[in-house]
Amino acid sequence: MSHTAELIAVGTELLLGNIANTDAQMLSQGLSALGINVYYHTVVGDNPDRLKAAVELAKTRADIIITTGGLGPTCDDLTKNVLAQCFGRQLVFHEPSARRIEAYFQRLHPNRPMTDNNYQQAMLPEGCTVLDNDWGTAPGVAFEADGVRVIMLPGPPRECKAMFTYRVVPYLKDLADGVIVSRTLKLFGIGESSMEAQLRERMNAMTNPTLAPYAKEGECELRITAKAADEESAHALIDPVEADLKAHFGPLVYGVDIPSLEAAVFALLKEKGLTLGTAESCTGGLVAKRMTDLAGVSSVFRGGVVSYATEVKHTVLGVDQDLLDQYGAVSEPVARAMAEGARKVLGCDLAISTTGVAGPDPDERGNPVGLVFIGLAAPDGTWVRKVNLSMGRQRIRHIAASHGFDLARRYLSGLELK
Amino acid sequence: MSHTAELIAVGTELLLGNIANTDAQMLSQGLSALGINVYYHTVVGDNPDRLKAAVELAKTRADIIITTGGLGPTCDDLTKNVLAQCFGRQLVFHEPSARRIEAYFQRLHPNRPMTDNNYQQAMLPEGCTVLDNDWGTAPGVAFEADGVRVIMLPGPPRECKAMFTYRVVPYLKDLADGVIVSRTLKLFGIGESSMEAQLRERMNAMTNPTLAPYAKEGECELRITAKAADEESAHALIDPVEADLKAHFGPLVYGVDIPSLEAAVFALLKEKGLTLGTAESCTGGLVAKRMTDLAGVSSVFRGGVVSYATEVKHTVLGVDQDLLDQYGAVSEPVARAMAEGARKVLGCDLAISTTGVAGPDPDERGNPVGLVFIGLAAPDGTWVRKVNLSMGRQRIRHIAASHGFDLARRYLSGLELK
Repeated sequence: MSHTAELIAVGTELLLGNIANTDAQMLSQGLSALGINVYYHTVVGDNPDRLKAAVELAKTRADIIITTGGLGPTCDDLTKNVLAQCFGRQLVFHEPSARRIEAYFQRLHPNRPMTDNNYQQAMLPEGCTVLDNDWGTAPGVAFEADGVRVIMLPGPPRECKAMFTYRVVPYLKDLADGVIVSRTLKLFGIGESSMEAQLRERMNAMTNPTLAPYAKEGECELRITAKAADEESAHALIDPVEADLKAHFGPLVYGVDIPSLEAAVFALLKEKGLTLGTAESCTGGLVAKRMTDLAGVSSVFRGGVVSYATEVKHTVLGVDQDLLDQYGAVSEPVARAMAEGARKVLGCDLAISTTGVAGPDPDERGNPVGLVFIGLAAPDGTWVRKVNLSMGRQRIRHIAASHGFDLARRYLSGLELK
Repeated sequence: MSHTAELIAVGTELLLGNIANTDAQMLSQGLSALGINVYYHTVVGDNPDRLKAAVELAKTRADIIITTGGLGPTCDDLTKNVLAQCFGRQLVFHEPSARRIEAYFQRLHPNRPMTDNNYQQAMLPEGCTVLDNDWGTAPGVAFEADGVRVIMLPGPPRECKAMFTYRVVPYLKDLADGVIVSRTLKLFGIGESSMEAQLRERMNAMTNPTLAPYAKEGECELRITAKAADEESAHALIDPVEADLKAHFGPLVYGVDIPSLEAAVFALLKEKGLTLGTAESCTGGLVAKRMTDLAGVSSVFRGGVVSYATEVKHTVLGVDQDLLDQYGAVSEPVARAMAEGARKVLGCDLAISTTGVAGPDPDERGNPVGLVFIGLAAPDGTWVRKVNLSMGRQRIRHIAASHGFDLARRYLSGLELK
């Protein structure tokens, strides 16, 4: 039997636009993976009447209602009170939760007495399943009434996500009607519209698995999603589609279910036992930052030089002053010399360099915003890619850094460097 | 007269969790600034019946309905068809919009003929106000019927935001019932709960302006919001509250309506004519990256060294090998030597250094995850701050970088460095 969930987020801060409803996104992904349909998201403020109206409506069109927010001590447990009322339940004091809240509070504020409103958080609907919260003070709650499963989760995204993963998924497991499995191919070096155009007919003809294209920050994704009785059967549906797409897009595919280009580079460096360094101008530390976002990267990443001032390119990276004078800092020869300089100065096998105009204004030589040279120096040669990125400052920086990772990835994979 | 708006986002990709409903956040902020109340957000899929139900409900509880999404050529203009039906309007061909769409399409795809479904986007409710879209193909639409103002906007956040700012705000201007003005104090060095505890009584006693605390990525914000007949009167209500809070929190307040700590540092460096450089270990380029996120920063930012490998601290930054051997890379003396080395190597007035354990594991000397030393070297001395950040890798890195900016900000403001 197929199930339908409705998400109700409670919080005036959402209606004022102070925060985005990212809980709804996370829960939707998670429910979809369980094969549970989500037909509506609703957001209401900290207002009992409007929350009540939303719950009454949800009862008519969903058999799972998940609320987020309104469980904190400062909002008088609005959500619990209203939901208990909607489903005719009393709130009763739950001793173990009170002890958990005390312990949590004491770990956080060893020198401050716990106030009464924190104990209020231990008042829970009678006969409910308590979803222990190991990531905050407010316990989550689940119960069944009027043919509906009601689940209340805390609002802070970190808590909400952990509670969903470790408490709600096990609680809902018996409802899952088969499984939905997704696999995502990541592509760099092709635009979304071009990718879509090449796939449109195929996508329209597919029903299970389905194929969905996405674009984000200069990259493209192709998500293959299959629905089946179990994970194994779902994967068997996905395998041939993945193989087919890889053959079609070739070296544009940099990985499958991999978080980022830099993660692909990290894996390849580890595999080959090689080290990396950076020499950055317009990206200003972003290449190094993205690399060191990855835990454990110290085994392959040596460091970098951010040579934002032209002089630093000469003094620290050893770029010839003649090159800088003749071609300017934003040029192919300087990108080359920066990458080669970084290899020497940092003692690394490979070095990525970037030099370009991130904007908002053209540089003093009149190079336009978005012109970037990206270099890769390796023991057997140096390659430079020139790109024109007509977009805003942060996107230029991000995509220029991605080109650096793409060069490294292609070099390490033995692909043509272009 | 006070107005109430309801937001309806249309798109199955929202219900699958592929994207977050950031349009709702942006619109809520904008409507709140116009003094228009938002009581509900709803998200529905690409389904005419469910959209119809959502619109019928919204008609009963709002006098402004704003939809986002469902205007693209691939979804058969779902939103326009359903809304026209709900309000008894015919769709008619709008010649000028067809011409705009053609022109836009040609700019994007000079070699591809425009397909018929793009012309479908020029079918608009009769008698409506067309909201010209200069940022995409789908025109926006506004009309009044049944006592409700209906506004339809495209879903892509970039288009939606531009359309709201340049088309909807002027269209709604006559409704604005006074103005709501907010001013935000930014604090670093105090926790949210402590800030809230100090302000609780005051906050509860306030009605206009109101005071709201927020916490994000290791920083705190205090937003003062006033409602008044005009901007000037609103600011007059805010001024004394701001002065009072600044006196209370003193040097913890690093700015008002300023985007970030690094922006505060940039402004101070410019004002004093001083330059900055960085020497980063655990933050791996993040300090430099955050600094160079700011446009125009090349006037004050010289560059940085990411000395991720211990050896690079010695070879590039000139940190004494003895110090590294005796105290280890994560230590007060090394943070000091890194900052002083960066000043010399990069030729800058001030240098921020970071060295610590970002995790997930303790370092080889057994220093715990979250221990970070942050240094600031200046012409008249070097200061090092030691912090213990018990949180995840990315937050440790972010907050360590913030401490570096905080040291620089305090030095440049003539505050005590502690």
